[in-house]
Amino acid sequence: MTLIDRTSHGVYTIMPTPFHSGGEVDLDSLRRLVDFYEAAGVDGLTVLGQLGEAPKLTHAESVEIVRVVLDRTRLPVVVGVSAPGFGAMRTLTEEVMSLGASGVMIAPPANLRTDDQIVGYYTQAAAALGPGVPIVVQDYPLTFSVVMSVPVLCRIAREVPSVVMLKHEDWPGLEKIGALRAAEEKGELPRLAILCGNGGLFLDFEMRRGADGAMTGYCFPELLLDVVRLAGEKRTEELHDIFDAHLPLIRYEQQPGVGLAVRKHVLRRRGLLASDTQRKPGRSLSAVERDDVDLLLARLARRDSRARL
Amino acid sequence: MTLIDRTSHGVYTIMPTPFHSGGEVDLDSLRRLVDFYEAAGVDGLTVLGQLGEAPKLTHAESVEIVRVVLDRTRLPVVVGVSAPGFGAMRTLTEEVMSLGASGVMIAPPANLRTDDQIVGYYTQAAAALGPGVPIVVQDYPLTFSVVMSVPVLCRIAREVPSVVMLKHEDWPGLEKIGALRAAEEKGELPRLAILCGNGGLFLDFEMRRGADGAMTGYCFPELLLDVVRLAGEKRTEELHDIFDAHLPLIRYEQQPGVGLAVRKHVLRRRGLLASDTQRKPGRSLSAVERDDVDLLLARLARRDSRARL
Amino acid sequence: MTLIDRTSHGVYTIMPTPFHSGGEVDLDSLRRLVDFYEAAGVDGLTVLGQLGEAPKLTHAESVEIVRVVLDRTRLPVVVGVSAPGFGAMRTLTEEVMSLGASGVMIAPPANLRTDDQIVGYYTQAAAALGPGVPIVVQDYPLTFSVVMSVPVLCRIAREVPSVVMLKHEDWPGLEKIGALRAAEEKGELPRLAILCGNGGLFLDFEMRRGADGAMTGYCFPELLLDVVRLAGEKRTEELHDIFDAHLPLIRYEQQPGVGLAVRKHVLRRRGLLASDTQRKPGRSLSAVERDDVDLLLARLARRDSRARL
Amino acid sequence: MTLIDRTSHGVYTIMPTPFHSGGEVDLDSLRRLVDFYEAAGVDGLTVLGQLGEAPKLTHAESVEIVRVVLDRTRLPVVVGVSAPGFGAMRTLTEEVMSLGASGVMIAPPANLRTDDQIVGYYTQAAAALGPGVPIVVQDYPLTFSVVMSVPVLCRIAREVPSVVMLKHEDWPGLEKIGALRAAEEKGELPRLAILCGNGGLFLDFEMRRGADGAMTGYCFPELLLDVVRLAGEKRTEELHDIFDAHLPLIRYEQQPGVGLAVRKHVLRRRGLLASDTQRKPGRSLSAVERDDVDLLLARLARRDSRARL
Repeated sequence: MTLIDRTSHGVYTIMPTPFHSGGEVDLDSLRRLVDFYEAAGVDGLTVLGQLGEAPKLTHAESVEIVRVVLDRTRLPVVVGVSAPGFGAMRTLTEEVMSLGASGVMIAPPANLRTDDQIVGYYTQAAAALGPGVPIVVQDYPLTFSVVMSVPVLCRIAREVPSVVMLKHEDWPGLEKIGALRAAEEKGELPRLAILCGNGGLFLDFEMRRGADGAMTGYCFPELLLDVVRLAGEKRTEELHDIFDAHLPLIRYEQQPGVGLAVRKHVLRRRGLLASDTQRKPGRSLSAVERDDVDLLLARLARRDSRARL
Repeated sequence: MTLIDRTSHGVYTIMPTPFHSGGEVDLDSLRRLVDFYEAAGVDGLTVLGQLGEAPKLTHAESVEIVRVVLDRTRLPVVVGVSAPGFGAMRTLTEEVMSLGASGVMIAPPANLRTDDQIVGYYTQAAAALGPGVPIVVQDYPLTFSVVMSVPVLCRIAREVPSVVMLKHEDWPGLEKIGALRAAEEKGELPRLAILCGNGGLFLDFEMRRGADGAMTGYCFPELLLDVVRLAGEKRTEELHDIFDAHLPLIRYEQQPGVGLAVRKHVLRRRGLLASDTQRKPGRSLSAVERDDVDLLLARLARRDSRARL
Repeated sequence: MTLIDRTSHGVYTIMPTPFHSGGEVDLDSLRRLVDFYEAAGVDGLTVLGQLGEAPKLTHAESVEIVRVVLDRTRLPVVVGVSAPGFGAMRTLTEEVMSLGASGVMIAPPANLRTDDQIVGYYTQAAAALGPGVPIVVQDYPLTFSVVMSVPVLCRIAREVPSVVMLKHEDWPGLEKIGALRAAEEKGELPRLAILCGNGGLFLDFEMRRGADGAMTGYCFPELLLDVVRLAGEKRTEELHDIFDAHLPLIRYEQQPGVGLAVRKHVLRRRGLLASDTQRKPGRSLSAVERDDVDLLLARLARRDSRARL
Repeated sequence: MTLIDRTSHGVYTIMPTPFHSGGEVDLDSLRRLVDFYEAAGVDGLTVLGQLGEAPKLTHAESVEIVRVVLDRTRLPVVVGVSAPGFGAMRTLTEEVMSLGASGVMIAPPANLRTDDQIVGYYTQAAAALGPGVPIVVQDYPLTFSVVMSVPVLCRIAREVPSVVMLKHEDWPGLEKIGALRAAEEKGELPRLAILCGNGGLFLDFEMRRGADGAMTGYCFPELLLDVVRLAGEKRTEELHDIFDAHLPLIRYEQQPGVGLAVRKHVLRRRGLLASDTQRKPGRSLSAVERDDVDLLLARLARRDSRARL
């Protein structure tokens, strides 16, 4: 078991949860997905996130999914354990860490407003989980309605040692990455690993600001890996060339509410998911949306052969 | 097992969850509370509500609490089953209904905005739980940020037959009760039982508007029972006399965030709870707050001997 | 012209804006109100607040109202100048200060979230208005959705010298007053005058925590004056006796959306307003609500002869 | 004076308000912008919108800006008149309509929640403005926190005859356009002109769903005109080719808070604005952001010669 830490980097894929058309968890597709991501070369996996439909799973299903993923791969696996209370959060955390997870991800509850409330929440969460569990803070105001300023993130990083990683998806967020890295330079902030979300919509520039990689679920992880690699090699034009080829689809997939349906549709077309079913409340693509996505895929395939489905 | 229905009425007490000072559930105090409420003459109990600290309990603890309460009383027991997803909601519902619960209460998730979204949510929830489970809709915009208009409640009542009761705690809400009863008269709304929350802060007038009683946890259920009874007997002046004697404390207890600490403090002083502990995140009364409450209790005791502690 | 400062105290009445039944500003009633409040003995007036229907007035009407009030009284007058932008805020401020206003009150725009955003807003507002204009910060999360923690208020008070007063209406807010006074003791906060709002709902206890008085518009300013005076004389039981007599009406008047209609209704019954009209969007009391209020007034009159209307 | 109506279509540019570096309105740049947009071939102009920094202007400045624009062009001009109250809204509307404006745009206040509240607001606004003033409803939940469902828009369109146009910027919004057009087919909705905002981020697909054009302020109106024209000619591949070339910049410009700084920076580089100054609270691009935008412009220029600056 490897734990994530402040030096973790690369591409961590947010995994969707596959369901059969009747709504049961589809473990075969789950294993196929794990194999696919591992073969693609990702650096880690994240399961039971928001786009993994975690809130729609029972506790037993959540644990089973983590078990199956951990049985299938030696990649580090981060598990989303956000819950309305610390009781359920701790129970799930203990189970998945004992199974071999590498860390947990915690989103803030929507009623947090002031700086003190936010810092207090992560302090209490870390105390509830105990010192040995590395925590990823999910900074996603658009979905969670909680705005974490740079000073708040500095305080969390200083006061809560088990917080080692930021899943960065504030929007806009480019300047924030720069400000966090500057604070780190000045010693106001212990280093945090910063992996970017938002479906990759700004990954081209996020890497230049000092991000360590991506933690998101865009339906072509190959693109995320390319961008991270080309950024490391400072091959800027090639980075933008491949990124821009994918941007029309990235943009389409990043629509709230629609995104997961796009992602499951493409993963099904890629032969990885048996069905694009979401549990309720959820949706599939309409016929017109499927046409849109297929048009985007066809255009993409001309510039990136991996998109020939 | 009796199920709640559209004719249910009277006082349903929202029960707090007793904890030992270390944070474990205190089942002895729980049983003592049940006995106390039953002896006081309440018409039903509600457990695992927001002020029952439900989100801080593990699934196993939640089920255990329901089991202990149902073993102890023949009163109808409503169980809060609000959850981020229908999976966990159904699992808990099946367990507590099979144990003998009389119905479930569901609060809306905070992201619902439009009328269609709200109606759709309760439609899907009812489908997930199945037709035999009576549902209480919790209408509490101050806490849940979801505003249910009278037309929305009419649509829910018409389209979702298993919704039989409204826990009314919109604020302001007096006109709403009147409007709902008027809609019922006009045949736009199948009758709903309307029990009022908000700590009882407007119960004196809510009964006149057509409420069927109270579902709330004010630390003197005796007062709620008095008001409901005197309203039924149309003894208006006596109703207001006893209500007004309690109002300074009701008002103090109704402060968000503070209220549960007041409630547990008084129930401890009444010899019902062994400890006023809340699970994290929670709080106890400060020394000054305890002085405030004790002053209010002393003044109340001069007008209502049941408050002599 | 007297300016408000950090030692201001007592009762500042939030004045409603009187309208004729057709919607025009009723300057005769306005003058009558000013005379009434002055005769009652209040320490100051606040005009163009939220409950003064300020956003429904044109700029010209706003200035005219301030002019008429200032022409009529030598009491200090605070003017609400909240506006979506600093341009309009500065224009109105310059006009009313040159007419003789004693200070201005600024509510935060609803989109502020982080501590830095809130402090930044008041810093910029004070810079826009210039150094000679005393500012009242309005801390009213229930209406404005902006939560100001004690550390934020300390920062504002330290960094923005022209902020001299807090209109305190956080809810719950008793502990906050205590925490602000403790911070002042420790030198973390330059003294602020703290006047309490929320319709007076907690004024009985707020004075004990260290408030300097009330700034609110309860329809019996006599009660607010009593409470402030009795608190100063430490006559606690008499304070609670008179406060508790008014509490049923205070509580009814404090309902969001309904409160102003109650206030205007009572002020009309007291012979001060010619009409209880509100500008759109607004409302009058329904017949049932009028009955409620009249019942409350009749009961109050038995304990406070000033309520015999 | 031409009024907008239900058949209006094409590209209406949201105009930024130019300021000198000291913060005064820059009327020379304003006239230059008008000339530029007219020469580019846009179908109309929209002034005093959210991105026109309308809330930061005094009333006098707002009127002056409208006057200068109307003096300079014969294009139809829509004026944003959103205000916290109907008094100021009517005053501004009367002035700009008498100057020759073609209609007004109204954003919903952030506190609207239920369907009835939203419909009621536009009903009251239209009554306040009078029957001769065509109204554009701005549907932009991300900024205004008000979610307008398709049934709500149908009700507004049916019940408020002066509402003739929808500025569509819900997100996601593609299905909504389709649903509105389907409702129109079924006779549930009088035809509305639908112009799309969101900086153009989905304009490629919005046109296919039945939009009538764009009302947004992307710094290359030429692109918006191309997309609308190519959509009309059903030249899908060319449409996507030119759109995709601009998408990296569109995406960068569409970041909340950053977008206007990008827009003003590019318009300054295009020689249209003398300064990229925003009034407070506002911002300019950081050095790194300027580098980002310049890189995007350089890459764009290779595919669209109009971007060679």
